[in-house]
Amino acid sequence: MLQRKATVNIRRLGASDNVPLVVHRRALAKACRPVQRAQFRPTCTAQTQPPAPTNGAVNGSHSATVSPSVGGATESANPSLTANLLLQCPDQKGVIAAVSQLLYGFGCNIIASDQFSDQTSSMFFQRITFDFSDIVIGPGNTPVLERAIAELAQRYGMKWQLSYTNKVKRLAILVSKQDHCLYDLLIRHRSREMRCEIPLIISNHPDLKHIADTFGVPFHHLPLGKEAGSKQQQEAAIEALIASERIDVLILARYMQVFSQEFCERHWGHTINIHHSFLPAFEGARPYHRAHERGVKIIGATAHFATAELDAGPIIDQGVTRITHRDSVDDMIRKGKDLERLVLAKAVRWHLEDRVMVHGNKTVVFED
Amino acid sequence: MLQRKATVNIRRLGASDNVPLVVHRRALAKACRPVQRAQFRPTCTAQTQPPAPTNGAVNGSHSATVSPSVGGATESANPSLTANLLLQCPDQKGVIAAVSQLLYGFGCNIIASDQFSDQTSSMFFQRITFDFSDIVIGPGNTPVLERAIAELAQRYGMKWQLSYTNKVKRLAILVSKQDHCLYDLLIRHRSREMRCEIPLIISNHPDLKHIADTFGVPFHHLPLGKEAGSKQQQEAAIEALIASERIDVLILARYMQVFSQEFCERHWGHTINIHHSFLPAFEGARPYHRAHERGVKIIGATAHFATAELDAGPIIDQGVTRITHRDSVDDMIRKGKDLERLVLAKAVRWHLEDRVMVHGNKTVVFED
Amino acid sequence: MLQRKATVNIRRLGASDNVPLVVHRRALAKACRPVQRAQFRPTCTAQTQPPAPTNGAVNGSHSATVSPSVGGATESANPSLTANLLLQCPDQKGVIAAVSQLLYGFGCNIIASDQFSDQTSSMFFQRITFDFSDIVIGPGNTPVLERAIAELAQRYGMKWQLSYTNKVKRLAILVSKQDHCLYDLLIRHRSREMRCEIPLIISNHPDLKHIADTFGVPFHHLPLGKEAGSKQQQEAAIEALIASERIDVLILARYMQVFSQEFCERHWGHTINIHHSFLPAFEGARPYHRAHERGVKIIGATAHFATAELDAGPIIDQGVTRITHRDSVDDMIRKGKDLERLVLAKAVRWHLEDRVMVHGNKTVVFED
Amino acid sequence: MLQRKATVNIRRLGASDNVPLVVHRRALAKACRPVQRAQFRPTCTAQTQPPAPTNGAVNGSHSATVSPSVGGATESANPSLTANLLLQCPDQKGVIAAVSQLLYGFGCNIIASDQFSDQTSSMFFQRITFDFSDIVIGPGNTPVLERAIAELAQRYGMKWQLSYTNKVKRLAILVSKQDHCLYDLLIRHRSREMRCEIPLIISNHPDLKHIADTFGVPFHHLPLGKEAGSKQQQEAAIEALIASERIDVLILARYMQVFSQEFCERHWGHTINIHHSFLPAFEGARPYHRAHERGVKIIGATAHFATAELDAGPIIDQGVTRITHRDSVDDMIRKGKDLERLVLAKAVRWHLEDRVMVHGNKTVVFED
Repeated sequence: MLQRKATVNIRRLGASDNVPLVVHRRALAKACRPVQRAQFRPTCTAQTQPPAPTNGAVNGSHSATVSPSVGGATESANPSLTANLLLQCPDQKGVIAAVSQLLYGFGCNIIASDQFSDQTSSMFFQRITFDFSDIVIGPGNTPVLERAIAELAQRYGMKWQLSYTNKVKRLAILVSKQDHCLYDLLIRHRSREMRCEIPLIISNHPDLKHIADTFGVPFHHLPLGKEAGSKQQQEAAIEALIASERIDVLILARYMQVFSQEFCERHWGHTINIHHSFLPAFEGARPYHRAHERGVKIIGATAHFATAELDAGPIIDQGVTRITHRDSVDDMIRKGKDLERLVLAKAVRWHLEDRVMVHGNKTVVFED
Repeated sequence: MLQRKATVNIRRLGASDNVPLVVHRRALAKACRPVQRAQFRPTCTAQTQPPAPTNGAVNGSHSATVSPSVGGATESANPSLTANLLLQCPDQKGVIAAVSQLLYGFGCNIIASDQFSDQTSSMFFQRITFDFSDIVIGPGNTPVLERAIAELAQRYGMKWQLSYTNKVKRLAILVSKQDHCLYDLLIRHRSREMRCEIPLIISNHPDLKHIADTFGVPFHHLPLGKEAGSKQQQEAAIEALIASERIDVLILARYMQVFSQEFCERHWGHTINIHHSFLPAFEGARPYHRAHERGVKIIGATAHFATAELDAGPIIDQGVTRITHRDSVDDMIRKGKDLERLVLAKAVRWHLEDRVMVHGNKTVVFED
Repeated sequence: MLQRKATVNIRRLGASDNVPLVVHRRALAKACRPVQRAQFRPTCTAQTQPPAPTNGAVNGSHSATVSPSVGGATESANPSLTANLLLQCPDQKGVIAAVSQLLYGFGCNIIASDQFSDQTSSMFFQRITFDFSDIVIGPGNTPVLERAIAELAQRYGMKWQLSYTNKVKRLAILVSKQDHCLYDLLIRHRSREMRCEIPLIISNHPDLKHIADTFGVPFHHLPLGKEAGSKQQQEAAIEALIASERIDVLILARYMQVFSQEFCERHWGHTINIHHSFLPAFEGARPYHRAHERGVKIIGATAHFATAELDAGPIIDQGVTRITHRDSVDDMIRKGKDLERLVLAKAVRWHLEDRVMVHGNKTVVFED
Repeated sequence: MLQRKATVNIRRLGASDNVPLVVHRRALAKACRPVQRAQFRPTCTAQTQPPAPTNGAVNGSHSATVSPSVGGATESANPSLTANLLLQCPDQKGVIAAVSQLLYGFGCNIIASDQFSDQTSSMFFQRITFDFSDIVIGPGNTPVLERAIAELAQRYGMKWQLSYTNKVKRLAILVSKQDHCLYDLLIRHRSREMRCEIPLIISNHPDLKHIADTFGVPFHHLPLGKEAGSKQQQEAAIEALIASERIDVLILARYMQVFSQEFCERHWGHTINIHHSFLPAFEGARPYHRAHERGVKIIGATAHFATAELDAGPIIDQGVTRITHRDSVDDMIRKGKDLERLVLAKAVRWHLEDRVMVHGNKTVVFED
């Protein structure tokens, strides 16, 4: 009820034509504060979830985004409550002012902000990290904030995504037989370089189970081929694991299988692949062999969002290293491993920190 | 008179305690517009210049910054009027909102914005590029905008600097006998990679006059040594040239002389030196020789703001290149030349585009 | 006559089955020395030139290679007489020993040597720099050395090339409208980074004449198009210039025209092109535009030997630089210019120093 | 007895004044072959070991070098018997010819060879990889070859070292609390990137035992401090382990203790340390903190041979990565970890492959 009032309040302000969106802090604070500690929290989940999936998520990783995990005991345990807001919209005057004003009006403190106006597409992109521990509506009532953002988004034709830092994303790593990227991700995870949970590793081969065991991560062997299941069956099994483990991000850490178009579309924007070449050179199979044949002097690796079309998805990051005529294919494979590890790890970390936005077939990466 | 009104208006809004600075566009527009075309323009120069030098300039390059060169014929010739606002202040809530709101309120469109909150020093840094062709007070009245910024700055304890893009900065290049950096800067200038004017080259040796001639830049030979003038006399001659040519930026392009402390302090923040080592390694003389002796596997170059203490000023950029045991000192000098050129050119370009801020002995560089 | 003896001597040694090629220094010295100062020198030119072009040149740059310019006044002027021997042959035992033994036997001192055995092709490549100022047959009689090498080459199925350091190679630079590579080569030449002569610049446009004038290099405008000459006529004019100026190396410094297959074949192995992408990505036109569209995070430049097939020739060197979503096509062009300059300059310098060998469509580069 | 004959034979050839060292293959083969399979093998160990340590080892890793491990069952199992010969001597004519001739004379096939003449020190350095499976004296009689090399070495004032590829070097890894380099080395070892045995890990802290356990490597906790043993006692314990496990190489993988001068001297040339800065910048403690304070734009890591003087030993390799003002000390530590891993792994691999030679306080690295 009171919540509706708040919404109305925002809407009214938002509707005013020539004036930027201003949330009057005192009025809002007065309206919301009493509610915050009383009836508000139980209802917010149900009320905000519907609108968000339809017009909200930028990269589709909605499970990490929408569910209002801010609440309960963890809240007080974690004194600094922060969130990342990603947004993109047609470039227009006043967007930056409107968004920063909205957050300021709610009593949020902008810690970091990065924006980019793409001249080619006339699109505007922004990433804002803000602290909402002093939010006037109480940190448990972020759905009110989400609704205000949703309204603003509608006015500016924005796609947006809000991720709460204390909602840790859940990764599934898919591998085949190569171990270097798997090792690398697990070690970085253990040393807290990457903030995420890794509840499962999936492979079409049993070879790397021992690594999963070493790091205490459940290993799921889902074979393919004649005697094993069909591709369809395997994908269904993967989907079941993704659902049961509430996976937010899929990492193809040298997973040497192509997914169906349906699978790729379902997991668009949160599936990251590492390709062992400097794309678009040497798309497809055996890139090091072909690089050796062509006699290139530099080899590379590319992390990109997976698409149904092989090695054609939006590039997140690329790395390169010099080689010489002395480097055999085996040397290139060895040198390439280091590249693959570094480039994949960087892309995964950036994605986990909500630094990557996709527009068309390109990414905007707000690097750290 | 009307101007005072506008100022009062801003002040009043700025003074309100809990509310961010909001400039009511319609009110402001109404108040200022009639003035803009009538009495306003002639007075603005005199009125804004005094406050700016005292509390305004971030890096001291005030000549490029404060003088309101927006006016007269060039105005209509350049349809897109843009400016760069640099600011730094103690980190606090609401700064981003206040600044973007102020610009929006004036009818300016933020084209690009970069900010950084330094956790160590608790300082906030921002660079905003905005288009003021639709400014409500008229593009000829930017002093009003400057005064509004100055007021905001006072509230937040801000150091700030405003540079108008159509006020092209004026460079003096100082060289000794090495030609590679001089060539490089002149070629980049000619090919419009660097937006500036280069009205003079100064050298303590006559050797590079032919290059100055080739590119049509006046060359001033100000020798040093027994028969030539003393250091003091030479510095006085340089100062005279800087004054008469209204120089904004000094580039020490392998100028092998040290300036007096007084000179360095007078030109603090707009004097860029290139040192041929990866500082702080090999400060001082003959860095390549010492790098060769130490047996390093990588050499570097460092562009930094000049200070009286040799090679100790804030670093703007550094570059490196691999070497091997095969590289003699001469090879290192040759490879180093490419580094020096690239690093110096980058630092100069960034400085010309108002991308470099100094805090303490460190820089914040908003790279392009 | 005596010369024949020396040859026979070598042949006999070379013919012995199980024993490596050994030139008995004393015997050889005894046989040759008297001749050296008397009748020998006048005849050597005529006698060695015929065999060399047919079975000698590795990269076809025979004009720099075969003509025995060692002689006359320059000889005594340059106290250190050095030469670069490039050779390639099927990998087999004893090659290194045989070659080093031959040079040692002649009294030459190996200053540097680099070799490479390619496992894939089972080929052996070597580059030897040797000092022949103490050659037992006298430094004016290098044709005798050449004949000995030719015999050894026949035994081992070797392709070889011998370049005398004091025979400076002659470059022609071909350009269109872009000036950065031209400037760069001319400045490096002037500062003696590149050891060569540049007797002419050729262009299909008149735009860069002023640069040629600045550096005092004759500029030949050979236009193409309707009113101008046909492609055939233009190529004929270029060929005439190459012949009259005894050009050894052609540099396509952003020359935006494709040569006929015949032209490419005639100048195979001594024509270096710079392509503004990281080949094999973005072969052909407008690579930066296509890189921008694809959203790559790294751009590159490639120096390669020109072939009739566009951008498909053996790669000499490549360079890359990181870009971000902020980089427009214009930024990429600007950043790419620095790459193109550096990569082309390196490739040219390596070629001038006989560091590049071609086998199939790949290069072996003995870097400095 | 027959062995003495062979030696005499070599000596006689070597003594001849003006003629390069030539081993007549047939004569030598005839003399040695019968012996090879009969009485020769048992005696060779005792007879060659004495001379080698005194004038032989270049880097002191004599345990890997001298003991003639070529023999027994492995011999026939490994069809390709190769060895690396490292040598350095005053630069002089004929060295390359003499060495390659000697190897050729013995029926060895040079697979790869790299050499370098240092103009500054007038020293000559060479690394030769040769296949001795067809050695005329039989692959079990390499001590004869060693003696021939020793004689040649005496003639040319050479320091030399011969390492047989099938004698795998044994590594000890020393760590404190940081795990990234340890993980990295163990994973590369497991994936056969590094050819060595790792029989033990030593630490002054118990923290990383779990990693040693994971990879099945014995972990020795040798604490330091008040209640634990003194530095002397700890070093003695380390020495005992080195002796009992026949360790060839010590890797200080972020081992945060300084060894005594005696220890450093005893293990000179086979102890590799990784320092987390771009030496000589930021020698000593807390380099990232100091780099942050100085405001550098690039950080580095340096692998070097350990000396008693801290961070002053010969540099094997260095790596760097760009940072910006945004990088906190923690970010620098994180980015630095990747550098440290890569640089240390490269240095270790090069050392294991006998690619690193030391002269004075500098290294000659024949990179792969």
